[in-house]
Amino acid sequence: MENFIDQLVDKVEKKGSCSVVGLDPQLDSIPDEIINPAFQKKGGLLESGARAITDFNRQVIDLVQPHVGVLKLQIAFYELLGIWGLKAYADTIAYAKKKELLVIGDIKRGDVSHTAEAYAVAHLGVAEFRGMRESAFAVDAVTLNPYLGSDSILPFIKMAKQYGKGLFVLVKTSNPSSIEIQDLSYEKSVVHQKVAELVAAWGKDMIGKRGYSSIGAVVAPTNLETVRSLRSLMPNAYFLVPGYGAQGGRAEDLINCFNEDGLGAIVNSSRGIINAYAREPWKEKFGMKHWQDAVEEAIVAMNKELKAVTKKVRERS
Amino acid sequence: MENFIDQLVDKVEKKGSCSVVGLDPQLDSIPDEIINPAFQKKGGLLESGARAITDFNRQVIDLVQPHVGVLKLQIAFYELLGIWGLKAYADTIAYAKKKELLVIGDIKRGDVSHTAEAYAVAHLGVAEFRGMRESAFAVDAVTLNPYLGSDSILPFIKMAKQYGKGLFVLVKTSNPSSIEIQDLSYEKSVVHQKVAELVAAWGKDMIGKRGYSSIGAVVAPTNLETVRSLRSLMPNAYFLVPGYGAQGGRAEDLINCFNEDGLGAIVNSSRGIINAYAREPWKEKFGMKHWQDAVEEAIVAMNKELKAVTKKVRERS
Repeated sequence: MENFIDQLVDKVEKKGSCSVVGLDPQLDSIPDEIINPAFQKKGGLLESGARAITDFNRQVIDLVQPHVGVLKLQIAFYELLGIWGLKAYADTIAYAKKKELLVIGDIKRGDVSHTAEAYAVAHLGVAEFRGMRESAFAVDAVTLNPYLGSDSILPFIKMAKQYGKGLFVLVKTSNPSSIEIQDLSYEKSVVHQKVAELVAAWGKDMIGKRGYSSIGAVVAPTNLETVRSLRSLMPNAYFLVPGYGAQGGRAEDLINCFNEDGLGAIVNSSRGIINAYAREPWKEKFGMKHWQDAVEEAIVAMNKELKAVTKKVRERS
Repeated sequence: MENFIDQLVDKVEKKGSCSVVGLDPQLDSIPDEIINPAFQKKGGLLESGARAITDFNRQVIDLVQPHVGVLKLQIAFYELLGIWGLKAYADTIAYAKKKELLVIGDIKRGDVSHTAEAYAVAHLGVAEFRGMRESAFAVDAVTLNPYLGSDSILPFIKMAKQYGKGLFVLVKTSNPSSIEIQDLSYEKSVVHQKVAELVAAWGKDMIGKRGYSSIGAVVAPTNLETVRSLRSLMPNAYFLVPGYGAQGGRAEDLINCFNEDGLGAIVNSSRGIINAYAREPWKEKFGMKHWQDAVEEAIVAMNKELKAVTKKVRERS
């Protein structure tokens, strides 16, 4: 069984892309050609909506699969549609795995150890009882919230070791209010740096053949100096970088996310890719009728922008 | 529409109980008389397990309903069984509402605002699309993680105002590693006190007729002085107190959780009630055969212990 991080680096190099496509579908942005038939069949809002999401996700996966190796599913947009939505979540994961993509479950869970064990089995492992075994939502990696500290993370680490999975712990998020807790100064440092030190410690015995750990960090490129400092506190951690595109992140802000080898970060865009047809700069050119062309052009453009960044990083070093 | 906190105080007074029963069922602790028939019917582990949990929860609800007004469901133990488990979660909520109990969804979500909106609709609100409306998992209140700050909480506040719901924000949790982040000192205070100040601010325009806010806090009684300080920082917040029973909390540690009116806190026990038959002090007396008697005796005993605490609080003031 290969560990998560070596699979990840392998995918990044094979596809020539450190982009992550975020499958965060919202009904009011799914093209009519998918929404209309989904809502013409029987079923209430949740059932029909989940049908639309499943169909949309499959088409998006087919479109982006030649260009990226990693998807991220924000589970909130599936929970929104209840058990139907979570069936769409599970079905999308299964489809993505069939297409040989790595899937990150953006779940941001965090709870006391006994409860964290249940979450870890649900999202990374296999439930077992009386000789039976079955997985609930097994993805390749999950995001976690560190507010409860080590004993909320350790059950996930155990599961990651057992099944070759990965974790991305929230260190510094992209939202404006992230400063309220994450940037509080303590002694000579700030809270998110303390979390970064914990991430480095948690990941030190899960380092793969390329020097990266299966325990990574969510780091938003809010500030060049903050990212530089986090990069040096966690040299072996892969960064999952949110906020590209729709949340306003720009390619030049990413430069300190990467290491000298041009690796060390994957960058997510969700609405910027899957809803490209309705957004600048693709809106005029494509529109809803050509939404598939917009998805493809958006991911190709993102790959190109990120390649320019990693090229600059390698040249700088 | 009555606000959440007035409904809560009303339940506490009508039942004469500030106990919360935590429905955190785990298959290996569910009595054989429920497990065996559930697994004899068709279906895999997740489907059969969810059937056992649903049946067990209904029986527990019938047993505790005369004695308590509030249940808490830890969603991790349902996610563990995938979409089947989440159907058990939804079915249990529906059954509890039919029995006129308040239900807290212990979900500890926390995400950027756009995503927090989706979670808030999923767990407190109603999904809407093209004139259709349907709820996914509507409970009366949820727990939230504050690591992302205000903009991760505000969508839940909006939903709570719209639908008369409540929130309990994690301030200080019961696990040993909670010190790592929550107890970091900043300037003249510590992180969990900063969160307490935010909770007080978020809740100040949601105060009901008894002086309490629909925005409460999760506060573990780890230390008498810590709790006293949190009580004074958040005088209007109802505390949801975890860790009673199975996690080692004792009645005398709770004294500072309450205000002078004997109100201000609800106290959760999960395994200590639902698995009482297998635990001290009920194990010898009951055993699995009389698991129902053990549940009832355990909740009656807990109510009595907590009444002694609130009596002492009122006498002290």
